[in-house]
Amino acid sequence: MTFDYAPLLPQGTPAAGQRWAGFPTYNFVGGHIDNETVPVDDLRAAMDRALARDGADLATYYLQSGPQGYKPLRAFVADKLKRYAGIDTTADDILLTSGSLQAMDLVNKLLLAPGDTVIVEESNYGGAFTKLNKLGVNMVPVPLDEHGMRMDALEQALDDLAARGIRPKYIFAIITVHNPTGTILPLDRRHKMIELAKKHGVPIFEDECYSDIVWSNERPPALRALDDSGMVIHIGTFSKTVGPALRVGYINADWDVLGRLVALKGDAGSPALEQMMLAEYGPAHFDDHVKRCNAVLEGKLDALIEAVDQHFGTSVEYRKPPGGIFLWVKLPEGVTTSRLAKVAGEQGVAVNPGPEWSLQGDADRWIRLCFANPPIPVIRDGIARLAQICHDEFGVPEISGNVRR
Amino acid sequence: MTFDYAPLLPQGTPAAGQRWAGFPTYNFVGGHIDNETVPVDDLRAAMDRALARDGADLATYYLQSGPQGYKPLRAFVADKLKRYAGIDTTADDILLTSGSLQAMDLVNKLLLAPGDTVIVEESNYGGAFTKLNKLGVNMVPVPLDEHGMRMDALEQALDDLAARGIRPKYIFAIITVHNPTGTILPLDRRHKMIELAKKHGVPIFEDECYSDIVWSNERPPALRALDDSGMVIHIGTFSKTVGPALRVGYINADWDVLGRLVALKGDAGSPALEQMMLAEYGPAHFDDHVKRCNAVLEGKLDALIEAVDQHFGTSVEYRKPPGGIFLWVKLPEGVTTSRLAKVAGEQGVAVNPGPEWSLQGDADRWIRLCFANPPIPVIRDGIARLAQICHDEFGVPEISGNVRR
Repeated sequence: MTFDYAPLLPQGTPAAGQRWAGFPTYNFVGGHIDNETVPVDDLRAAMDRALARDGADLATYYLQSGPQGYKPLRAFVADKLKRYAGIDTTADDILLTSGSLQAMDLVNKLLLAPGDTVIVEESNYGGAFTKLNKLGVNMVPVPLDEHGMRMDALEQALDDLAARGIRPKYIFAIITVHNPTGTILPLDRRHKMIELAKKHGVPIFEDECYSDIVWSNERPPALRALDDSGMVIHIGTFSKTVGPALRVGYINADWDVLGRLVALKGDAGSPALEQMMLAEYGPAHFDDHVKRCNAVLEGKLDALIEAVDQHFGTSVEYRKPPGGIFLWVKLPEGVTTSRLAKVAGEQGVAVNPGPEWSLQGDADRWIRLCFANPPIPVIRDGIARLAQICHDEFGVPEISGNVRR
Repeated sequence: MTFDYAPLLPQGTPAAGQRWAGFPTYNFVGGHIDNETVPVDDLRAAMDRALARDGADLATYYLQSGPQGYKPLRAFVADKLKRYAGIDTTADDILLTSGSLQAMDLVNKLLLAPGDTVIVEESNYGGAFTKLNKLGVNMVPVPLDEHGMRMDALEQALDDLAARGIRPKYIFAIITVHNPTGTILPLDRRHKMIELAKKHGVPIFEDECYSDIVWSNERPPALRALDDSGMVIHIGTFSKTVGPALRVGYINADWDVLGRLVALKGDAGSPALEQMMLAEYGPAHFDDHVKRCNAVLEGKLDALIEAVDQHFGTSVEYRKPPGGIFLWVKLPEGVTTSRLAKVAGEQGVAVNPGPEWSLQGDADRWIRLCFANPPIPVIRDGIARLAQICHDEFGVPEISGNVRR
């Protein structure tokens, strides 16, 4: 007889779901990158050198570097943060994590309790909304424009909260290649954000997961570079540049915060091989590799835009982002993307519906299309199918491939 | 001016601790293994083959295997569980985790709420006590004898709880190379444990972290092998056989439970390289490797015992365990090991004091000595120093190296 766990589980625990059935054929969701750009040969060489030198250290937790993570990789991250994001830091102020998801969880665990308030960009990483909702935290959304977070709206939000006696726990900011809009916040707004945050005594939680993926290979300094008070907690990852399956992220913060995060981590260290490999690979190859990836990704974005233009015509709105791996697209009136995502998903075309990635009023008109992973022919075919499905379901777009349906 | 986080943190959040200062000179704590036994060359070859074949898959989360983890490694784990522990299972019922700590956290997250009750072996993995205390769970300890958990005491505990209307959430069982005593529970007690658990409708959480480290290379079937109702949730790890820095553990359970744990994991997968490497390394090398390690480790245990005999003489009590990486030692009357651990730690000799690893009345007479990592000369020197420190602090042992102090 099968043992029944149900009476032992908290009420409302969902039943076990289905087993994973593979990726959808037309996969426009998830932070995957381009398989062709994974630098397999250089990674092999780096991994082999690192294992030959330090392999015996696998016998001890922490690779002789302690719970902050493998020191040579921390040194590379500090160097990269200086050169890419203008942050003057050292290996001592880096904590390596198992992906930036763990970084986010740690910061939330340190700072948040149910009933707390945080300020977020109105459209945002869907996973952040999910985590904050689970934690019972109130989110105050700040609207965006074509350059990113609006500082007048941020000021208003902070003033309103102050008037109600509420001190938010942080401002969550994905401002360098915003998710999902892809915008990069201009320098003057960055200075303004720090000024406002400082005035209200609110820390900034800066998430730079996509900040290396910029077509021009240039970007403004990070918020953490513009502040010397320690009020900015900065996180990043190697997921979007070397590979998401590696699960290597990092936190850069002053010790007052970082030391507490190290204590909270409590997982006996993040896995060794990725840290060893990236530390060996990074100094020699990372910069050139990122430039190569960016060229490939911009080409894929152009292909996506061409396909969207061809199959959706003028019925949709979007702005070509300066970087990132997604296009944020507004569909014609009458379309609800939560429904579209469901119907399309059943036919092998996976897209993120707006309501998962935005709190704005018209969220259900938007979709997020991730373009980094599918090969260009699959992008083209997938968008054609999506337009057809959309037409079948909602009657729009009317025009497809210059042929009236 | 430095930003002050204190007003934003929950009351009682400790300040940031000191940075890691390296391992102690005489390190008898922590689940480290012997550096010399790490099979570096075979791991290099395995890693390189795996990367050459599947490296491009780093571009996607989950290595084409879904959130349960890399399927070839799940297949190897299933095979190993069958051959070593007698469990008839498949890759479909394995969830790969970031170390067995994550496995433990997931099971606890699924089953436990504050105020719940669990049954534990009276002496136990210190980290389990810490986790359960943090979760606000009541622990009912079951005494051990020279063979492990006493079934008469387990029956009594279950009956007492039933009489009070309490259904424990699980029985936590490290019965195959118990931590810290090293005992292996005999087969008849295993059958009895299942019978008792079934009678009371209490699942068993079986933790087999050390079960491959057995001098005879033979062990009784796991509890999960002896039950066909799904009431046993089984976890294990590669930490003690290949290396703790890898952070690769696993959970083996029926889908009713496993599917829920997969959903709770939510970390976008455990890191890829370790899974790829172990899947490639395991089938060809794991069995021989474990036998080699066990021979080395028994030699180190013998050296430890010789040193303990030499420097502590008959003032201490212990039983040579049939496997594992630690010796559980009772010190002479008058010694309090919580104090000894503190004083010795300040002098570079790290040991686990009994109260961290046991709820038994005389816990403060016991220490746990991990012997896998220090080379034999360091073991000898460290035990000599520990005896000297113990003598200086408590006046015992009187005899050291056949010389009265």
